[in-house]
Amino acid sequence: MKAYMDYGSACPVDPRVLKAMMPYFTDSFGNPSSFHSEGFKALEAVNRARGQVASLIGAMPEEIIFTSGATESNNLALMGGAARYSKRGKRIVASDIEHISVMNICKELSRQGFEIEYCPVSMEGILYLDELRKLVDDDTVMVSVMAANGEIGTIQPIREAAEVAHEHGALFHTDATAAAGRIPLDASGMGIDLMTLSSNDIYGPRGVGALYLRKGLRVKPQMIGGGQEQGIRSGSENVPGIVGMGRAAELAEADMEGEAGRLTGLRDRLIEGLLGAIPESYLNGDRERRLPNNANVRFSYIEGESLVLSLDELGVQVSTGSACAAKTLEPSHTLLACGLKHEEAHGSLVFTLGKDNSEEDVEYVIRQLPGIVRRLRTMSPLTPEELR
Amino acid sequence: MKAYMDYGSACPVDPRVLKAMMPYFTDSFGNPSSFHSEGFKALEAVNRARGQVASLIGAMPEEIIFTSGATESNNLALMGGAARYSKRGKRIVASDIEHISVMNICKELSRQGFEIEYCPVSMEGILYLDELRKLVDDDTVMVSVMAANGEIGTIQPIREAAEVAHEHGALFHTDATAAAGRIPLDASGMGIDLMTLSSNDIYGPRGVGALYLRKGLRVKPQMIGGGQEQGIRSGSENVPGIVGMGRAAELAEADMEGEAGRLTGLRDRLIEGLLGAIPESYLNGDRERRLPNNANVRFSYIEGESLVLSLDELGVQVSTGSACAAKTLEPSHTLLACGLKHEEAHGSLVFTLGKDNSEEDVEYVIRQLPGIVRRLRTMSPLTPEELR
Repeated sequence: MKAYMDYGSACPVDPRVLKAMMPYFTDSFGNPSSFHSEGFKALEAVNRARGQVASLIGAMPEEIIFTSGATESNNLALMGGAARYSKRGKRIVASDIEHISVMNICKELSRQGFEIEYCPVSMEGILYLDELRKLVDDDTVMVSVMAANGEIGTIQPIREAAEVAHEHGALFHTDATAAAGRIPLDASGMGIDLMTLSSNDIYGPRGVGALYLRKGLRVKPQMIGGGQEQGIRSGSENVPGIVGMGRAAELAEADMEGEAGRLTGLRDRLIEGLLGAIPESYLNGDRERRLPNNANVRFSYIEGESLVLSLDELGVQVSTGSACAAKTLEPSHTLLACGLKHEEAHGSLVFTLGKDNSEEDVEYVIRQLPGIVRRLRTMSPLTPEELR
Repeated sequence: MKAYMDYGSACPVDPRVLKAMMPYFTDSFGNPSSFHSEGFKALEAVNRARGQVASLIGAMPEEIIFTSGATESNNLALMGGAARYSKRGKRIVASDIEHISVMNICKELSRQGFEIEYCPVSMEGILYLDELRKLVDDDTVMVSVMAANGEIGTIQPIREAAEVAHEHGALFHTDATAAAGRIPLDASGMGIDLMTLSSNDIYGPRGVGALYLRKGLRVKPQMIGGGQEQGIRSGSENVPGIVGMGRAAELAEADMEGEAGRLTGLRDRLIEGLLGAIPESYLNGDRERRLPNNANVRFSYIEGESLVLSLDELGVQVSTGSACAAKTLEPSHTLLACGLKHEEAHGSLVFTLGKDNSEEDVEYVIRQLPGIVRRLRTMSPLTPEELR
């Protein structure tokens, strides 16, 4: 059996995306800044991709800035936006369960003199809008709330959060890394000022991302050089990568509805199958307001790492938290923010489903995992007698 | 005829590099931070590439930090190094002909309170070491001199420049984008503390680069997030890109000597052929201390852009300066620093040869260019009567 269920950590590149990229590695490999036919071809390809990415989120092509990935986009949005608009205010409000890059950027901004406030979330990981209203004031320069959490799958009320930000003249940023291509996003309709997008999370190549920057806004460049990407992000354009992200966005837009329906079915079966078969197992995140591909389940008395390794031996890859935060041995800050204790947070498994997963994969996990959990619980000194 | 001679602006990916990358797009696509077999495979691939890049410049694998390209590496080296070691001093010394990213980073550092000094170069673009000695003082935190200039081809005395820096306790950074893979580099033997490397310039993929950071040194991270690359450069690793850069470095190391000899022959024939056939044409840069693949020739009384477009119609792609600086209409700061007048700088053509260029290509240019120059000079009001 081979059942990769860790699409939240890394996705394969869609073969159709790779096909679109191929000519730009070896044939049309020009520099878009070059003043000759090879340069013009490359420039045209980059601009086509810009339109494709814009279309996925209801934006205009000139509102898309290509970057090297979601982390860079988050840095550009928050560091660049805070620096550019620091005269508007010194407060930045982020949710308690943002991606580690946003959390660590906030720490850096705090060292630079900004006042950071973190907005709490419910036990299901849903942003408390009333708390947000208390935290955002006229001294707030930016509010950052992710569109959906890649770890616990929770979809946030970003339209409402954007309204709160705008009532006080603050900018609204959303990290849509986990959400884009999985749920509909409409940058202008939802009142989003800045949006982080990742290429790999929509089956595009690694090392590419984008920042949506609403027309008329500027951010302070965080990478200085030749002035590419409207002077906002310097560095020779990664043409094959950008072409790949564009094609991936086009495919995501076309496939999203059907694929979301299919994955929702697999997800629900997985959740029900596991919760039904394994005593003292619980769903993390919200049951309804949830990404179609995410199931995050915790199992009392055992460690997520042992579960991950046991499943891996059977050909199933999952996570115990965000791969992005794997450098730290701390339990998931997201689960702690949802009110879990350290030991509860440690016993969680994140399943992020994707295009190659089938019903067979899901049934296989539902068959295999109960035995693994039982075996590991038998070895754990914490397990009560009746579960051994 | 198809004779691309603008390898300094963009290189095709070597088919052997692309072959090495391919499995990591669709098969071994794991996240190196993931705690399962797919993650371990990806981590192993990244570390293999780290060793390959290190080997090209005589470094240790742990001294290589992967980035999104040379511009990011320059930012990380200079912004990150200046911030990290600002207590050592407030002065930064760069050569007058650094890449536009280094020049613009220096401007930003100047706004942040650093004192920037630019070291002049000779008419051939060679760094004046005596001037460098006058400019570097005990308050100097960093000296940045490129290993070779991609536009005029000049190879700099970086070993000696590093010595000057170290005499005053300053760090020495070199931008080796144009030099790596073309001339031998030995990071530790040459006394280099930080070195910028580009993947595409050695026939690797775009969107990848590296910073060599001598063991024991730190820089302030410029991209904040999950703590990848020893906490110095966050963001999920671009595994296929990194694998490609590694393979490209391995090939560059193996092929360098032979290819440098071959290109030097083509370069010399091109220079001699053009200077011999076209009156009032002159070589920019140094005749001897020159990259094997670079010929930069200026032609009085005409504009480089017209020459570029005329050659492009005949299937030959060249530059009139650095593609990286093409966003500005200013003449090349490099040529001005060499003492050329504005109108002289405007009439220059940069030929950067590469792996697919043959003698036939060079002879073709030598046959075609004199007629183009004559025609354009006839149309120019500046041309003296005897050249019409």
